[in-house]
Amino acid sequence: MAKKSLSHLYSCESLSAQPSAIRDICALVSQPEIRSLAGGWPDAAEFPLEEIGRIFEALMAEHGGQMFQYGSTEGLRDLRLELARRMRNEGLLKAKADDLLITHGSAQGMQLAAQVFVDRGDVVMAGLPTYFGGPGAVRARGGKVVGVPVDRQGLDTTALKQEVKRLKTAGERVKGVYVIPNFQNPTGVTLSLKRRRRLIQLADEFDLIIFEDDPYGELRFEGRHLPSLKSLDDKGRVVHLRSLSKTFVPGMRLGWVYAAKGAVRKMVVAKQFADAATNTPSQYILLEFIRQGLLDRQIKRNISYYRTKRDFMLEQMKRHFPAAATWNKPQGGFFIFVYLPTGMDAADLFRRAVERKVAFVTGQSFFVDGGGRHTFRLSYAQADNKDIQFAVRVLGKLIKQNLPRRNIEKAA
Amino acid sequence: MAKKSLSHLYSCESLSAQPSAIRDICALVSQPEIRSLAGGWPDAAEFPLEEIGRIFEALMAEHGGQMFQYGSTEGLRDLRLELARRMRNEGLLKAKADDLLITHGSAQGMQLAAQVFVDRGDVVMAGLPTYFGGPGAVRARGGKVVGVPVDRQGLDTTALKQEVKRLKTAGERVKGVYVIPNFQNPTGVTLSLKRRRRLIQLADEFDLIIFEDDPYGELRFEGRHLPSLKSLDDKGRVVHLRSLSKTFVPGMRLGWVYAAKGAVRKMVVAKQFADAATNTPSQYILLEFIRQGLLDRQIKRNISYYRTKRDFMLEQMKRHFPAAATWNKPQGGFFIFVYLPTGMDAADLFRRAVERKVAFVTGQSFFVDGGGRHTFRLSYAQADNKDIQFAVRVLGKLIKQNLPRRNIEKAA
Repeated sequence: MAKKSLSHLYSCESLSAQPSAIRDICALVSQPEIRSLAGGWPDAAEFPLEEIGRIFEALMAEHGGQMFQYGSTEGLRDLRLELARRMRNEGLLKAKADDLLITHGSAQGMQLAAQVFVDRGDVVMAGLPTYFGGPGAVRARGGKVVGVPVDRQGLDTTALKQEVKRLKTAGERVKGVYVIPNFQNPTGVTLSLKRRRRLIQLADEFDLIIFEDDPYGELRFEGRHLPSLKSLDDKGRVVHLRSLSKTFVPGMRLGWVYAAKGAVRKMVVAKQFADAATNTPSQYILLEFIRQGLLDRQIKRNISYYRTKRDFMLEQMKRHFPAAATWNKPQGGFFIFVYLPTGMDAADLFRRAVERKVAFVTGQSFFVDGGGRHTFRLSYAQADNKDIQFAVRVLGKLIKQNLPRRNIEKAA
Repeated sequence: MAKKSLSHLYSCESLSAQPSAIRDICALVSQPEIRSLAGGWPDAAEFPLEEIGRIFEALMAEHGGQMFQYGSTEGLRDLRLELARRMRNEGLLKAKADDLLITHGSAQGMQLAAQVFVDRGDVVMAGLPTYFGGPGAVRARGGKVVGVPVDRQGLDTTALKQEVKRLKTAGERVKGVYVIPNFQNPTGVTLSLKRRRRLIQLADEFDLIIFEDDPYGELRFEGRHLPSLKSLDDKGRVVHLRSLSKTFVPGMRLGWVYAAKGAVRKMVVAKQFADAATNTPSQYILLEFIRQGLLDRQIKRNISYYRTKRDFMLEQMKRHFPAAATWNKPQGGFFIFVYLPTGMDAADLFRRAVERKVAFVTGQSFFVDGGGRHTFRLSYAQADNKDIQFAVRVLGKLIKQNLPRRNIEKAA
């Protein structure tokens, strides 16, 4: 009764907000007997525990209580200096500690960016498909998200231009583009250099902000690193969002934003009222981890570890999946995205798979237009080879059975 | 140039957002030679370092990588069970883990509550003065904050009723009341039991949400604990916000929200897109700290420690401040609020004090109506007795000199 009596007081955004489908799926399939290729989480077995333990002890002795005191909203200055230095080495030559804000995970970076740039009714463009964190943050501000196709070169910039033009002509306030340039979640696809340059041009032409979400960029298995959108941006239009969740550990919830000074100042103010400051001990630990050269070492290890798992999964897919299903070979990150023949229903496949104790994520939740029913995402990050082998074989068999449409009620 | 070219793309809320004046003052006065009574931070010398170090080591051995993995958005279930148990012992008899959300500090709790309940233009009532975190979170949603006087019994509920009536008659959408019931920041005042009951009645009468922000309640030095607003609420109108920053450590950024089930579900969805989940190792550490009975012990220690400091500061104020200045005796928490004779300017006092290497927080930043120029806040939490003695003596002398109005430019 209390619940009902309050709902008329909910905000518009809260009334329409939908929970993250993936987090729900992950909860559903977290039973130990399930062979899950669903989660996009890194493998906890690879976390640098020994190093963290040693560093924590030394930091306690060195800093005492200061290590657990409130920190500045911007984040530990020495840590920002280190992260700026790393970014300069990556080609972001102008990166400075003062233009950088430490966030409670890169999700918070996107939330703050949306707070600063999105008003109710504003439109942000995003990939079909795309990770839903960006769209979720935009919608939490009352913004709208409009999809643009993603192909093997990443976000289709020709389609983007047409769509933005159409929307602007229709009187829509198109404000920005949300893009994951490297090993995109969920497709694993990397935005080509040509399209990166084109995207920057389009942002200038149509007066857009680019929300560049790059949690996977440092986990490149092969090929050369492409310049970040931010490094191609001389107008301050790119908000560059980074995460330590895939290179260090996710549980410490550490990420950062690098953007034009004015925008960063606005995000700092937004963060003052969002959570005041990021977890202090986690920042100290990361700083020391970087200073001791351990982050570079950890990234190398992760690259080697996840590359081997990717190779194994691709090999298994080649062996067990029918030719009618297609997928990409990601050059980094965690994900392989599968397109079934149109008309086949991945949700149906999911129900049959769960009966066989196998799980993945249906693709539809990554399509802001509700499409993608014939797609699904696999992750090799957390599963071991035995589970990958078992799960891929089961999926291959189920797909080959050329699923007839079944009633949701029946399967549930 | 980049900065200018982006400002037309800022959101309305971001354009009008003001940085927290206190965080700026704290930065200004963080030089070691300053005797500061400004910060509202707990004393890092009191943090339970040895216990944290011991617990961390044991947890690493027990949980391994899971301790650094992503957690659920709701927070560690065992921790929610412990916090619910504690709340039941406090008189919140129906508190259940499922109606509880772990947040990245109580600031995030307020942000999520505002996300769920505040639309652009909605009005939330707040004390004159009040801590600005609540108003900041409301304004970040485009909401408006209207002040209601605070006296020695806390928020003036008679004035509240009149003001809400007036606003509703004028067509305003009054949505809620933000209140810090115990040892309020900045006044140190506690809301009387009579007014607590009255506030619940008014919320029913005017269909309001009560944002009950209670970071200090457990630090009661004397007298009996008063029932929380949430414990008097049988309609689910109270969003109860709690913090571990003053009872455990602030740097781990741990707080929680307890509210009606439907509202908590909405806040969980909002948090999925705000930062996905709260820092995992900090939650594990807190859980173990509670399980070992250390939180209760720490709270007892803190009460004794801060009570002694409060007593010392009150004694010094009695000795050095002129009769024309008035202040309260807080029964807990960190703050004493000083009213100078009307016409005197605390900002002027501040400038003179800083010249003498003494700092505090001017009261004006706590008044959403811009009033309170003749008030200021002192905190005994972080300063040692020597600094308290020095600072209070200097302030007493400066106040007695009956400050003439001076030009801001001149003093700066």
